[in-house]
Amino acid sequence: MSTSIRDTLESTLRRRFFYTPSFEIYGGVSGLFDLGPPGCQLQNNLIQLWREHFVMEEDMLEIDGPMLTPYDVLKTSGHVDKFTDWMCQNPKTGEYYRADHLIEQTLKKRLLDRDVSAKDFKKMQKILDTIDGFRGSDLNHIMQEYKINDPVTNDVLDPLTSFNLMFRTKVGASGQLKAFLRPETAQGQFLNFNKLLDINQGKIPFASASIGKSFRNEISPRSGLLRVREFLMAEIEYFVDPLDKSHPKFDEVSAEELTLLSRQLQESGNPQLPVKLTIGEAVKSGMVENETLGYFMARVHQFLLKLGIDNNKFRFRQHLKNEMAHYATDCWDGELLTSYGWIECIGCADRAAFDLTVHSKKTGKSLMVKQRLNSPKEKIEWVLDVNKKLFGPQFKYRAKKIESVLLRFSQEELRSRHKELKEGGKFTCQIDGDIVELDDGLVSIEMRTTLQHTREYIPNVIEPSFGLGRIIYCIFDHCFRLRADNNARAFFSFPLQVAPIKVLITTISNNENFPSIVKEISQILRKREIYFKVDDSNTSIGKKYARNDELGIPFGITIDFETLNDKTVTLRERDSTKQVRGSVDDVISVIDKMIRNPTESTWDNSTVGCV
Amino acid sequence: MSTSIRDTLESTLRRRFFYTPSFEIYGGVSGLFDLGPPGCQLQNNLIQLWREHFVMEEDMLEIDGPMLTPYDVLKTSGHVDKFTDWMCQNPKTGEYYRADHLIEQTLKKRLLDRDVSAKDFKKMQKILDTIDGFRGSDLNHIMQEYKINDPVTNDVLDPLTSFNLMFRTKVGASGQLKAFLRPETAQGQFLNFNKLLDINQGKIPFASASIGKSFRNEISPRSGLLRVREFLMAEIEYFVDPLDKSHPKFDEVSAEELTLLSRQLQESGNPQLPVKLTIGEAVKSGMVENETLGYFMARVHQFLLKLGIDNNKFRFRQHLKNEMAHYATDCWDGELLTSYGWIECIGCADRAAFDLTVHSKKTGKSLMVKQRLNSPKEKIEWVLDVNKKLFGPQFKYRAKKIESVLLRFSQEELRSRHKELKEGGKFTCQIDGDIVELDDGLVSIEMRTTLQHTREYIPNVIEPSFGLGRIIYCIFDHCFRLRADNNARAFFSFPLQVAPIKVLITTISNNENFPSIVKEISQILRKREIYFKVDDSNTSIGKKYARNDELGIPFGITIDFETLNDKTVTLRERDSTKQVRGSVDDVISVIDKMIRNPTESTWDNSTVGCV
Repeated sequence: MSTSIRDTLESTLRRRFFYTPSFEIYGGVSGLFDLGPPGCQLQNNLIQLWREHFVMEEDMLEIDGPMLTPYDVLKTSGHVDKFTDWMCQNPKTGEYYRADHLIEQTLKKRLLDRDVSAKDFKKMQKILDTIDGFRGSDLNHIMQEYKINDPVTNDVLDPLTSFNLMFRTKVGASGQLKAFLRPETAQGQFLNFNKLLDINQGKIPFASASIGKSFRNEISPRSGLLRVREFLMAEIEYFVDPLDKSHPKFDEVSAEELTLLSRQLQESGNPQLPVKLTIGEAVKSGMVENETLGYFMARVHQFLLKLGIDNNKFRFRQHLKNEMAHYATDCWDGELLTSYGWIECIGCADRAAFDLTVHSKKTGKSLMVKQRLNSPKEKIEWVLDVNKKLFGPQFKYRAKKIESVLLRFSQEELRSRHKELKEGGKFTCQIDGDIVELDDGLVSIEMRTTLQHTREYIPNVIEPSFGLGRIIYCIFDHCFRLRADNNARAFFSFPLQVAPIKVLITTISNNENFPSIVKEISQILRKREIYFKVDDSNTSIGKKYARNDELGIPFGITIDFETLNDKTVTLRERDSTKQVRGSVDDVISVIDKMIRNPTESTWDNSTVGCV
Repeated sequence: MSTSIRDTLESTLRRRFFYTPSFEIYGGVSGLFDLGPPGCQLQNNLIQLWREHFVMEEDMLEIDGPMLTPYDVLKTSGHVDKFTDWMCQNPKTGEYYRADHLIEQTLKKRLLDRDVSAKDFKKMQKILDTIDGFRGSDLNHIMQEYKINDPVTNDVLDPLTSFNLMFRTKVGASGQLKAFLRPETAQGQFLNFNKLLDINQGKIPFASASIGKSFRNEISPRSGLLRVREFLMAEIEYFVDPLDKSHPKFDEVSAEELTLLSRQLQESGNPQLPVKLTIGEAVKSGMVENETLGYFMARVHQFLLKLGIDNNKFRFRQHLKNEMAHYATDCWDGELLTSYGWIECIGCADRAAFDLTVHSKKTGKSLMVKQRLNSPKEKIEWVLDVNKKLFGPQFKYRAKKIESVLLRFSQEELRSRHKELKEGGKFTCQIDGDIVELDDGLVSIEMRTTLQHTREYIPNVIEPSFGLGRIIYCIFDHCFRLRADNNARAFFSFPLQVAPIKVLITTISNNENFPSIVKEISQILRKREIYFKVDDSNTSIGKKYARNDELGIPFGITIDFETLNDKTVTLRERDSTKQVRGSVDDVISVIDKMIRNPTESTWDNSTVGCV
């Protein structure tokens, strides 16, 4: 889509109030948007479809938690330290720029320069291909090497600084509890792991899910609905045994063909040509790390096609090594092509045991699965024993505390303390600030074989994460059409389940007998819970169709003079503009059937028109 | 419900993970809660029902906007100055108390004192009845008069201070844009008035609606789910002609009987005995200000009954004069009785033209309805004319600006300037800081009769506002039951459409042939989009019923040995624990029918059992 069609698209969206800048009469706030009635209804449909496709189909455990999140949680998760962008300021104008965006913008322009050497071209192309994984020092280096100044004023910019993208606030009257607005919905799911496991009767694997708003204090948001400061996310956390990442339903999706841009392809330096592979082949070849990750990639693909996303404008791009979090095993971004380029809308990551491990360490609460073993297993390990007879008299009121510290020693600690005991007959450790000495009369450490009846482990997490707001924009972009015979007439070819309004009720003229029929049809549709819109304005029928096509309404019921005689109406289909005639009852029941079972019913096999 | 049953209720809710304190493994944050899977599903159902009952039934225009809201918007709306509570601090412990709650708590205790005189009793009762409308000085006075100290330590408390209840944050890299988390969803609807009117083809009345989270930085939240810092709201703004607040569908609801606690009854000082009246009578008698307000009160009542709210524990309480905003015409709170007392869950207010007026004034943008008059109307008004010939030469580049200021003069201003002109031949006004003198050569002001073809007015707003989170707690409270024959067994008697899970699939034992039947039934239910739960654990069937009754699952399908022979199962109903037997297909189609049409189908007229 060219940028001029983009302008037509965005002005249509604004004119029909799919969305609008928030607080517009106050001048607006960049990066904040309202969804107007058709946009909001489309969003409601999208949420509903997401729940059906993921939550219901996989028996996921959906939860809903607050956006206000205390500092400690996000410090542990890594967001306080790492949820940052690098920015630079123009000291003269005060304007801030996001460094990676500024570099991309500048280098993309320089690539078009005729004088650029083949070598420089390749170098710049490599930077553009891999910039998502660059650290601040890398970006600073590039800014200097390419002498990148303010793109508007050409002023020299200040050196890069790191900017945390979370919105800060304080909770309570005293203001002592520092908090952030959550940058994602995932943490609430991790923190509830024990309760989720419990209501899943202790069984693994299972998935939790959450849908809700998240926040990102973008440095200088542009790109309309694609880069916003408050956005709707939907996230799944699939908790899985680290030793078995197979998926019980993988066979059902293994033939799904995906467009995959692997890490290797990106790093090859060649033009980015993704491959088309079935997810079965991709997992088998090791390109995608495991079945569960592959299963969700396939399910995501199926979901997007349901929404009207163009399969030719969708790909999974694997994270580069430097782009991926250190703990992650594999990560693929679901990217959609729009007039703004390829946009990351979905992330599918295998986050290993990172999240549960860090929260467990920080809080001292176990976040483990206990699996009963069918046959007990022998385990050889270091064991520490306390000589209770001497321990109490020696340490008195501190005995309990000291014992509990000793019993929490890791295998590695036990091994080294064993060595100290053997060599020097004693070791020391620090407990509540005091140095405590323990000799081989008080404790003994030895290697012992124990029989394990249960296996305890921290599960791994596979996380499919959806930016629903961005997906909404891509639906707009991919479903936008101009009539072949009249380029000034635009329409949205939304799938039936996505379309915000399903039926337009309209009249051929403003005859005084029409309103009662409009009312009657409205009541039937309302009873069937089918969203409709009445356009009984005094305008030509052609104009009425045209302006309601801009809302992507799939069906039009038109009342005309014949209706007064025989209670028949015309039914018009949006994409083809074909019309058929039938009784009110027949027409509505065809519409109802098609909306409820969009895969089973088609326009052509409907019975209307035969009446 | 006594507080001991409250404990049972709340421990059941926690155990079955309807909700849990957020960030519990981090010690929690008071006033923040997560909804676990059954709570979240119930919330989803509630949102769905709200949309059907209000948005769909009345063709409301639903919009969705951000929670981040700039300072200016909330300054204009009055929240920066007035969305406050009075609090006092214990200077020794640092603890904060909300003053009105502290007074209520203290006086309620003193009322029980045997030594209290009849006069003091009456005085304290009056304070308790009217405290919602007290200002800071009133509260301070009562704190001193009754010598109210810290309820825990008995320390003397600091004087009251006002605390703004909005969470603050800053937007953007520079941090210069001050913002709040919205305290309600209404402002976004007011600011979009022009766009909403436009897509409603300029016609009035119409309603907009919004569902979303709002925030309130409570001083010291207790009372569990009833007093939280982040909560789900649903708000309707019904825009109406101030000269005609009748409602086209009022007749459909006029016979609805409501429990009404009018202002007069509250101020009478007698025990608070509300009256039962039809809304038709209440509007006719003037107790409820107008039809539209009454219409929504009746619709709210119908909605609550659908949700399983006990009609005997619901009332509308009219705001007292001192409690109501100065601009409001009438206001009724929908209150629900719980073990915490009467809880405000819904507000129905006639806010007159306040909101649109203040935003229009602040931004200079017109927020008016233009109504074409069928016959032009004469209007006598003050009109100012500028003598263009002299004006331009006299004021040069400032002429346009000065003229535009003069043309915006109100009728009142014109009247007084006319007087000055007449008496002194001139008047002055301040424009951009300069004093400008205008004499009767430059301008003339006179009373003139004009012909108006359109009527312009700022519509009034009737606002039904719902605290969905509080309603959820009240559903829990009102639907909680103990089995008559066994008080240790509890269940939730949720209506079918409210129940988070509709069907329990269970097995009489863990026979190896059962799992395939469980799978088969699961697939049928999933295809019909009916939420179900499988409990195939190795426990007695009685225990399985009991623990799933705690989730309020209305139907239980049990697979037993007969199922293996003839594909019949038992169907158990939650409230009566009655069981019938039927084929899998019959049982599922009965369930499906009852869920889809709860008002038309009943357990008794179902066909199951006849098989």
